[in-house]
Amino acid sequence: MSLCGGEGWCESCIVRLERGVCQPPTEAERLVFSFEALDEGYRLACQTIPQSDVKVYLPPESLTAPQRLQVEGEAAPVTLDPRVKAIDLVLTPPTLEDQQADTQRLRNALARLDHPEVVIEFPLLETLSDILREQNWQARLALCQDRLVAVLPPGARLLGLAVDIGTTKLAGYLVDLSTGETIAKTGAMNPQIAYGEDVISRIAYAQEDPVKRRLLQSSLVEALNAMLADLCSSSGVLPHQVAQAVIVGNTAMHHLFAGLPVRQLAHAPYVPAVSEALSFPASQVGLGLAPGGVVQLLPNIAGYVGADHVAVILATRLWEASQPAIAIDIGTNTEISLAVDGRLYSCSCASGPAFEGAHIHDGMRAAPGAIERVQMIQDDIRIYTIGDQPPAGICGSGILDVVAELRRNGILDERGGLNSINPRVRPSQQGLEFMLVPEADTAHGKDITISRRDVNEIQLAKAAIRTGIDVLLEVAGLQAQDVHDWIIAGAFGTYINLESAIRIGLFPPAPLERFRQVGNAAGMGARQALLSRSSFHIAEQVAREVNYIELTTYEGFQERFLKAMYL
Amino acid sequence: MSLCGGEGWCESCIVRLERGVCQPPTEAERLVFSFEALDEGYRLACQTIPQSDVKVYLPPESLTAPQRLQVEGEAAPVTLDPRVKAIDLVLTPPTLEDQQADTQRLRNALARLDHPEVVIEFPLLETLSDILREQNWQARLALCQDRLVAVLPPGARLLGLAVDIGTTKLAGYLVDLSTGETIAKTGAMNPQIAYGEDVISRIAYAQEDPVKRRLLQSSLVEALNAMLADLCSSSGVLPHQVAQAVIVGNTAMHHLFAGLPVRQLAHAPYVPAVSEALSFPASQVGLGLAPGGVVQLLPNIAGYVGADHVAVILATRLWEASQPAIAIDIGTNTEISLAVDGRLYSCSCASGPAFEGAHIHDGMRAAPGAIERVQMIQDDIRIYTIGDQPPAGICGSGILDVVAELRRNGILDERGGLNSINPRVRPSQQGLEFMLVPEADTAHGKDITISRRDVNEIQLAKAAIRTGIDVLLEVAGLQAQDVHDWIIAGAFGTYINLESAIRIGLFPPAPLERFRQVGNAAGMGARQALLSRSSFHIAEQVAREVNYIELTTYEGFQERFLKAMYL
Repeated sequence: MSLCGGEGWCESCIVRLERGVCQPPTEAERLVFSFEALDEGYRLACQTIPQSDVKVYLPPESLTAPQRLQVEGEAAPVTLDPRVKAIDLVLTPPTLEDQQADTQRLRNALARLDHPEVVIEFPLLETLSDILREQNWQARLALCQDRLVAVLPPGARLLGLAVDIGTTKLAGYLVDLSTGETIAKTGAMNPQIAYGEDVISRIAYAQEDPVKRRLLQSSLVEALNAMLADLCSSSGVLPHQVAQAVIVGNTAMHHLFAGLPVRQLAHAPYVPAVSEALSFPASQVGLGLAPGGVVQLLPNIAGYVGADHVAVILATRLWEASQPAIAIDIGTNTEISLAVDGRLYSCSCASGPAFEGAHIHDGMRAAPGAIERVQMIQDDIRIYTIGDQPPAGICGSGILDVVAELRRNGILDERGGLNSINPRVRPSQQGLEFMLVPEADTAHGKDITISRRDVNEIQLAKAAIRTGIDVLLEVAGLQAQDVHDWIIAGAFGTYINLESAIRIGLFPPAPLERFRQVGNAAGMGARQALLSRSSFHIAEQVAREVNYIELTTYEGFQERFLKAMYL
Repeated sequence: MSLCGGEGWCESCIVRLERGVCQPPTEAERLVFSFEALDEGYRLACQTIPQSDVKVYLPPESLTAPQRLQVEGEAAPVTLDPRVKAIDLVLTPPTLEDQQADTQRLRNALARLDHPEVVIEFPLLETLSDILREQNWQARLALCQDRLVAVLPPGARLLGLAVDIGTTKLAGYLVDLSTGETIAKTGAMNPQIAYGEDVISRIAYAQEDPVKRRLLQSSLVEALNAMLADLCSSSGVLPHQVAQAVIVGNTAMHHLFAGLPVRQLAHAPYVPAVSEALSFPASQVGLGLAPGGVVQLLPNIAGYVGADHVAVILATRLWEASQPAIAIDIGTNTEISLAVDGRLYSCSCASGPAFEGAHIHDGMRAAPGAIERVQMIQDDIRIYTIGDQPPAGICGSGILDVVAELRRNGILDERGGLNSINPRVRPSQQGLEFMLVPEADTAHGKDITISRRDVNEIQLAKAAIRTGIDVLLEVAGLQAQDVHDWIIAGAFGTYINLESAIRIGLFPPAPLERFRQVGNAAGMGARQALLSRSSFHIAEQVAREVNYIELTTYEGFQERFLKAMYL
């Protein structure tokens, strides 16, 4: 969400074009940049329409804006080699002299095209005979390796679906498997929220009774089917053209989608039911793809490092990093992976929902009216809200800024205590609080404040993440300055002010240019695995070979965590 | 159904023990047989309990009684080698130091037992984690080749189910896959009868709308689940112990069970949707086996020569006959196969339901009170009913006898006309009729009669079957006397009087000792394919290599059929 809403005046999305062609600079860009800068390729991302694949450099100061362009860029280098491919067939119709069964006729034709041993997905048989007759014995077949998964009308576009099932949000990408083009994408809320805000409460709900577990599954599948219907209708295609879906999510979302038990995820030793990649007919879970369509789930690494994180590793190319690199996907649960010398170390941190605005007195989700950025120079406090609406509360990136700025201005001490000398600090029912926005300026007519307890929530969250980073560095024998790439994934991570994050100690001090904020890398990784068999295999290999570090039993974890609480 | 109800006095089940051990002769047997006969091994099957596998010879005069012993005998020579085998496992429970996913833990253990590449059936994943914990990390696994299909408690019996889906009746056999023992068997009505008596009317119903097709499927699956529950509860086992089912049926029953389209079966060129053997998770059709249990359907040969006939060929070992042999499975549709010199020829005859008592004025199914056998010597008419009840109607074998006896006694001419001089022949609304049982002697107080029209139905039925036999013989270049074995399968075929059948020309004249009436050979073939992988492969090979002869386009079929109408 940029401050100017894409009008080209806030300068928050400056990029430098390194390769490729874009349309000429707009008026807004000519106002912003000098001739030299334009010559060097500087552009405003919000004003620039690429006319080819492009490579862009993102200056650190642009990194608090949404990195949509960057996200798309990650998937570009993949060579198109989807698991599902199209084959066009014309069959000789049966006669009384040639009474071969329909499947036999199909098999014989496929054998002539060098596919001698095709397995026909069972659910496809329900419609195959009627379809062949309706289409006058012509068809475009979708073969997933040696499995026939869809029978389409001649010339129909063959499609794939990539999905990231987040605890809160779903992201879906409809992809043309013949060209690799993303023809539509959309987001939706995860309807399971009705049964529990976070993973733990949903596991508790699912555990009560198998019917409830199935309800969590069916509500999710229903939402995915609705999302697929939207994606298809906006592009003039049909869900039955979708032959394959690659789906990622954290381990709990993965399990709930596939109908797997989650009880064991909630108790030590936090074991997933399944870690390897899964492949099964979409009909098994009720996902409305082509009748024989296949669902593939990327592998999980551990109970709290799921397929979505594997997708992040895939999309960010962490697995092949030539210099030490770290990827951090911040959420209620934060997954971190460190790559060094071809080895990967991963861990999971219980960071809690504070960065999503929960458990914060005036916290809110990143919705219009949320304070997303705060600057304080002594008494001068500048507030930026999403959609430039009157402030209604503070979302994660705003809270991070507030804590960092309060600390910088000496209003907070290193333990999180508020300095009562400051005129905006006042007593409240929960101890001292800092008055950020007076009631006259807010949307709801009440002061927006930050309490000592709010600060403490942020301390807990940042300590959890920082401890994870530090433990991985220690295990790998590295110092923070050895890490060449700091990749910050996920919605929150995309919007935070990196300087604030470093200032409060969420990240170790590192040059800002080493950071990349890559948005929904999980969705990009899913799309990549859909388009490229070798990417899928790499994901499998990554999940198999990664060194998972269990923090709860790591020696000195507790001391380290307490130390990381300091601001 | 024997005349004495198994009390040992009707002498209709005489057999000769050729190999194996039985308990000593009973009092009833000592009354029936001479010492010489007992020494030669003659026994009454109803009185004899085998104490080992036995081989028995069935004298032709015994062949009108149910051939239960014979049926069981067919499957005996199969070497036990089921597709599903048990493996006992004890796993190390997970800890915080060993957080492998449950499936990974299982795979590693299986790899150590020389099963490195096991595919876990997707529906099994739903319960696997909970089961392993409940069973304290011990389990008996069922592996179907390289697929894990069931996870049972340690020591649980591993079971299989063989089913013959008849248009009218279902037959189920519950088998211990470790011993090959049939631990329970039962029959039930096919509930699809509510939607149409015969195959054609059910296809018509299914064709109306996909919901109706699914209704035919679900009602059938429900009946099979009820049958399985009965079989299990009578043996103190659970349906979840059943890891595999082998199912046969005619092509229409096969398709309706599997949810395949049947429209194309009803119209020329009468093509099956699927001919090859199918294997799919039981959950795909809602069959309540073990959660990962597998259903296998034997292959079909043609639109009207189905998997049940393949099972007949398997059970009767027709495929390896050293002398020319013919197998005839009589029903509303009659399938015939002829084996000669390692080649098989098959055809299908639209024989109609007359032999099942339908379309016959006083016809009825083979239920208590049905006249099942008739002898006439001039005026002396002897009537035998099922269960020795007062006659209520005539079932197939009874009608066959009546027509044969009327013809033998000159009351019918070769064209099927009744001789009006006979005192029992009288006019009726449908032309002449023969009064078989006067009202005073019947269960319902009405005369039981045979009309000219009834005779005509029998003529049509027997002509259809006889033409099929003659065409196959001609195609193979044989005469009837060249055929060494005449194998008559199916319920009706088991109960008919062979002399009557030959007399009316249903079968060509052949020595009675060349006939074998083998009962439900289809069910036995299914059981055999369940117990023996090589039998299953033979079934696949048979279906692939058989020469199917389409009678409707066979040259001279019509003339031949009309000629075969003569009695």
